[in-house]
Amino acid sequence: MRNVTSDTITQSFLDYMSDDTDERLQFILTRLAHHLHDFVRETGLTHDEWRKGLELLYNAGDISTPERNEFVLFSDVLGLSSLVDMVNSPDNGTPSSVLGPFHVRGAPDLAFGADMKGDNEGAPTIVGGCVTSTDGTPIEGAVLEIWQTAENGLYSGQDDSQPEFNFYGCMKTGADGRYLFSTVRPAPYTVPEDGPVGELLRATGRHPWRPSHLHFIVTSAEHRTLVTEVFPSDDPYLDEDAVFGVREKLIMEYQERHDPSDLPDELAIKPHIDTPYYVVDFDFVLAPK
Amino acid sequence: MRNVTSDTITQSFLDYMSDDTDERLQFILTRLAHHLHDFVRETGLTHDEWRKGLELLYNAGDISTPERNEFVLFSDVLGLSSLVDMVNSPDNGTPSSVLGPFHVRGAPDLAFGADMKGDNEGAPTIVGGCVTSTDGTPIEGAVLEIWQTAENGLYSGQDDSQPEFNFYGCMKTGADGRYLFSTVRPAPYTVPEDGPVGELLRATGRHPWRPSHLHFIVTSAEHRTLVTEVFPSDDPYLDEDAVFGVREKLIMEYQERHDPSDLPDELAIKPHIDTPYYVVDFDFVLAPK
Repeated sequence: MRNVTSDTITQSFLDYMSDDTDERLQFILTRLAHHLHDFVRETGLTHDEWRKGLELLYNAGDISTPERNEFVLFSDVLGLSSLVDMVNSPDNGTPSSVLGPFHVRGAPDLAFGADMKGDNEGAPTIVGGCVTSTDGTPIEGAVLEIWQTAENGLYSGQDDSQPEFNFYGCMKTGADGRYLFSTVRPAPYTVPEDGPVGELLRATGRHPWRPSHLHFIVTSAEHRTLVTEVFPSDDPYLDEDAVFGVREKLIMEYQERHDPSDLPDELAIKPHIDTPYYVVDFDFVLAPK
Repeated sequence: MRNVTSDTITQSFLDYMSDDTDERLQFILTRLAHHLHDFVRETGLTHDEWRKGLELLYNAGDISTPERNEFVLFSDVLGLSSLVDMVNSPDNGTPSSVLGPFHVRGAPDLAFGADMKGDNEGAPTIVGGCVTSTDGTPIEGAVLEIWQTAENGLYSGQDDSQPEFNFYGCMKTGADGRYLFSTVRPAPYTVPEDGPVGELLRATGRHPWRPSHLHFIVTSAEHRTLVTEVFPSDDPYLDEDAVFGVREKLIMEYQERHDPSDLPDELAIKPHIDTPYYVVDFDFVLAPK
């Protein structure tokens, strides 16, 4: 088309795609072009604003490394990562939530009842529950990958003072579908603010905090993989998670207790008597494949 | 909001912005969130597709340098750069067209009638015309920045065999608003295909060619700056410019001639007799500020 106008450019873009383009790719690009073009038309985007947007993307590329991906962070704070989680979540299982950038493969195996606290500072916390299918059947051999921050709000990969895989573990459920481990209460933390995402947050008066959470990936051969997070009900940032990860069903009470004698015998290490500790009960429901 | 769902996340994003956010920024981000969120909801974007999109952005960052900006190129081949040009073009002046990545500040001054061809290979081409305001008044002292490829389709900054600022120049109009220079006919060329933009073009069966063109930036104190391109009417890529830069009003006939005796006396160098050459007449119309 030799007379592309603001009314015809979207169709012109679509016409450029060859007929044998993958059907799904064609659909995605069609919707993307419609939305991006409408965005420019509706806002009457100026050249300065266009340059500013491109500058943010360029700077995101500049600060990104394989370990710190600013584009994922943009997707997170714009709500896109969470929205992708939502549109792919089965209706009847535990909701999924953001994977985040701190998942690491190769975490050490934990036996049922194992301890991740060790000598780490922090409030002792006993986490346990059952993994079931949507029909209520306990799932044997489900694998839980678990990771969280230390009490200082840092993951071990961000913090030279922690050993490798500190607060990272991998546990398999038995015939009853149960899991159980001891750890510390994780801490709220901020997403990185030293790049263009920080610039966007400051320009819109947004704080960079995430409520504290335990990360889980739960896999089972017959079920859809669940990537999720569990939040304490008294966290101050529940209502304004910088990355939109909170779902009501993922909020659990951290029950404060003092007497360790009621705790299950399978726990490798129990809190000392008179040390306050928390108990978190959380059941995972996986949708069949 | 502690129960963000796919229906409420857009409002949640908008609620996060503080009331004292710059009004225009708030509007732009509101429209951006609506469109990006709708895009994810309408396509039911999968995690794999989301990861693929982020991979393209990450790779764009990886291949970009201050001299080669892959994000601008993405904007170009998606039609966004041209659309920004269109929504900012005054209705009654010469249409604008993409700036492109090859504009360089500091081009040498050219006198009226100057020659840019020198010893370069290529078909001699005489380019001239008038710069007027929308009411037809010639504009004195308008500055034209001119740049183009050599006959091999490369700009001097891309090509070690060309001297610096080869085919780059800067000319001021006299009292009659006229400009005139001699050069060679520019050549079609491909946008860079070695990055993620090339991947996108190949996946959709698109070619990377741009029709040949002369670049101009025309500035005048009392008028809006015009960034544009002028295309030859017989170029094979006019109907499918990879970056959507062609407008009907920017297409000019390259008139082929053989007798140089009719050419204006002010030309510093005239083609030899019997050497075929081209004449391009193009008038620029600038909208008042």
